[in-house]
Amino acid sequence: MKIKPHSLSATEAAVHIAAGRLSSVQLVTSCLDRIAETDGAIKAWAHLDADHALEQAAVLDRRRQAGYATGPLHGIPVGLKDIVDTRDMPTQRGTPIFAGRQTEEDARLVELLREAGAVILGKTVTTELAFVHGNETRNPHNPDRTPGGSSSGSAAAVAAGHVPLAIGTQTNGSVIRPASFCGVFGFKPTRGTISRTGVLQTSRSLDQIGTFARTLEDAALLCDAISGYDQRDSESFPHARPSTLAGARAEAPVEPELAWFNLPFNDRLSDAAREGLEVVMEGFGARITRLDPADQLGELVAVQARIHEYEIAQHQADVFNSHWDQISPTLKPVIERARQISRAEYEDALAVKASAESFFAEFFQDYDAIVAPAAAGEAPAFGPATGDPIFCTLWTLAGLPCVTLPLLVGETGLPIGVQLIGPAHRDDRLLRTARWCQTHLAAEVA
Amino acid sequence: MKIKPHSLSATEAAVHIAAGRLSSVQLVTSCLDRIAETDGAIKAWAHLDADHALEQAAVLDRRRQAGYATGPLHGIPVGLKDIVDTRDMPTQRGTPIFAGRQTEEDARLVELLREAGAVILGKTVTTELAFVHGNETRNPHNPDRTPGGSSSGSAAAVAAGHVPLAIGTQTNGSVIRPASFCGVFGFKPTRGTISRTGVLQTSRSLDQIGTFARTLEDAALLCDAISGYDQRDSESFPHARPSTLAGARAEAPVEPELAWFNLPFNDRLSDAAREGLEVVMEGFGARITRLDPADQLGELVAVQARIHEYEIAQHQADVFNSHWDQISPTLKPVIERARQISRAEYEDALAVKASAESFFAEFFQDYDAIVAPAAAGEAPAFGPATGDPIFCTLWTLAGLPCVTLPLLVGETGLPIGVQLIGPAHRDDRLLRTARWCQTHLAAEVA
Repeated sequence: MKIKPHSLSATEAAVHIAAGRLSSVQLVTSCLDRIAETDGAIKAWAHLDADHALEQAAVLDRRRQAGYATGPLHGIPVGLKDIVDTRDMPTQRGTPIFAGRQTEEDARLVELLREAGAVILGKTVTTELAFVHGNETRNPHNPDRTPGGSSSGSAAAVAAGHVPLAIGTQTNGSVIRPASFCGVFGFKPTRGTISRTGVLQTSRSLDQIGTFARTLEDAALLCDAISGYDQRDSESFPHARPSTLAGARAEAPVEPELAWFNLPFNDRLSDAAREGLEVVMEGFGARITRLDPADQLGELVAVQARIHEYEIAQHQADVFNSHWDQISPTLKPVIERARQISRAEYEDALAVKASAESFFAEFFQDYDAIVAPAAAGEAPAFGPATGDPIFCTLWTLAGLPCVTLPLLVGETGLPIGVQLIGPAHRDDRLLRTARWCQTHLAAEVA
Repeated sequence: MKIKPHSLSATEAAVHIAAGRLSSVQLVTSCLDRIAETDGAIKAWAHLDADHALEQAAVLDRRRQAGYATGPLHGIPVGLKDIVDTRDMPTQRGTPIFAGRQTEEDARLVELLREAGAVILGKTVTTELAFVHGNETRNPHNPDRTPGGSSSGSAAAVAAGHVPLAIGTQTNGSVIRPASFCGVFGFKPTRGTISRTGVLQTSRSLDQIGTFARTLEDAALLCDAISGYDQRDSESFPHARPSTLAGARAEAPVEPELAWFNLPFNDRLSDAAREGLEVVMEGFGARITRLDPADQLGELVAVQARIHEYEIAQHQADVFNSHWDQISPTLKPVIERARQISRAEYEDALAVKASAESFFAEFFQDYDAIVAPAAAGEAPAFGPATGDPIFCTLWTLAGLPCVTLPLLVGETGLPIGVQLIGPAHRDDRLLRTARWCQTHLAAEVA
């Protein structure tokens, strides 16, 4: 094979592995080589044990050769954000407080990855406690820029060809924004689709799991493999999940109805992002409707912040109380502010969140998807801040499925994503619409 | 529909529900009517709340109508052996000791049933602590006979048309034997295929989950829906499960190689069972080889008993210590004997079990399946004893997948099953072979 295996999509690699044209050891070796070449500059990985990864790959190759059943990710390496517990690797959560932390159990999603036949390649760098303070990872397109956060290493590793698939989490904009900054697909399904058992809890009401990949199908493939009901997760729902891979592969039976919201914070968009989005919307023509929603929608940003901050201060109170001196100067003022939020303010915020969910449930009676920015523009400069998440906040608050497509290019040639948001529990339809958008826009350009 | 819904197979009902020709409420109502008509005599149900079942069905019907994703068992009622925990129904475990026992959590397999869209119809009668002392259930073919045990109610309920699918467990012969006595399909997949988290532990090393249905496909459909890795279960394995439904639907590419073991306890077979099995083997002709395995194979029966008894005495020591006066006179002497087994004897037994597993792994290099009796003959008289499990013991000990097909008829017209046993982790191939056997024997008779 002339193409280097690390550059294959997971879907392609899985076909080659099933056909015996590629082994998991070859694929993992190619990924490890790519990491060795480039991760000195990028620093996407918090933990990587090449021998352990190759050992998993060898076991999977032997099982396939012996004719055992194989899962949808058989032999495919996956990166895990370093807040997802694994029984065979440390989980440091982006803070020296948890250096060397080792759990006895896998997170539920890791169990499902193992059952699906994935190779757990390693842990990717997260911001401190998956919140505001960025760590060492650089944007693979430009080392002077941030990869975004909090799923910094997952986005960067997929973009750099280190691994075809990676897991992230999003409480505000932590999947969609780094995917946009790194030029990959980011997909956060409906809240509760993927279990959070064994994943650092930053906000019980808002934390959601998502996937990174270099194709839409791959993002869906990974999502389906780890989706499922888990009664230990308060947001998990006891119902069937739609096949998002089927959605990503489906032709839309009719052209979709799209919406664009003129939101008060749209003035934060960079010129390139604004112009790029205009071109996209012209491409959609009559399929897209520009709406001026009530101002209250913009106010949801504060509601998200109140819930997020109140809950992390509660859930991680022991960490903050016992290790305050090891908390970054970026995070400290946020926690100090969070501690001032009263129970009543928090409960009011939850009530507003519930009414936002009702609003969107009704809204999506008439529309297939909202088109929105994924981020304000190109990745900003590297530093403790990882960029503005505001273009993700509303959808995450309401638990809606979102996907970002790497369609635009910024002022300095760096990627910018276009986000699509769909109705809750119709993740397959969102990806079908995303596929239509990709195809339609490509045809417009051609 | 002229056919009463309760008489449909699960596979058929699922097709009708998906097409909108049948609602889950109609199906569940039909099952409840059938239960009301016949369960006075059979007593298959330990807990049944018609309103709660209909409520689940109505929710599932509404979700389907609203276009939400549906699982493989959408709207299909399932019965659960009364040792499988449910958060919405009591789990009494066949003993007054646990009358009204209510857990806060579902068993793992119940989570998977809910995700698959099943209606949890109720709890079926088990023997006392899923062991030797039978409870009130009667054989639906003849109320003077036992339905077998320990999954008495599950087998009887499926046979009586109360429910198309039910869950059982097997530590010795508790799925295959009652399925044989009640004239239904019983399928116990490879040990560790289905999680036991939230199921009464009688023997950590031997307890295995199985399914009851009126067709081979249905037994597989249910198995696939609840299969999966669960690190909380010491026997669960972190690998993909083969699709047993695909196996049950597959044409065998070549005619299978079958084996019959002349075992020392084959002299326990009734005349009708022996003669029926002879006819079956003649039907297989050159495809079956009769073997005289080493006598040690017969000695495995004592090894299974030693492990089973030692472990239940350990796992349930608190129950036996605190409630000895509520233990049946059937079980008491077994536990008294169990308490005499030394740790060394137990460990020796585990070592023999491991070597039996190696023996079978090698044996199945040359054969697709072993053909064996499912039971000694027709169901014996109703009473605390639920029949001889010896024809299941070896395969359960070795954790092999087994299925019984209701092919034979006994002296008084009651059903007798024919058992097929396959190599571990090749459950799809076992069901493919079972399908071949059914088709082949039907053609021989025609």
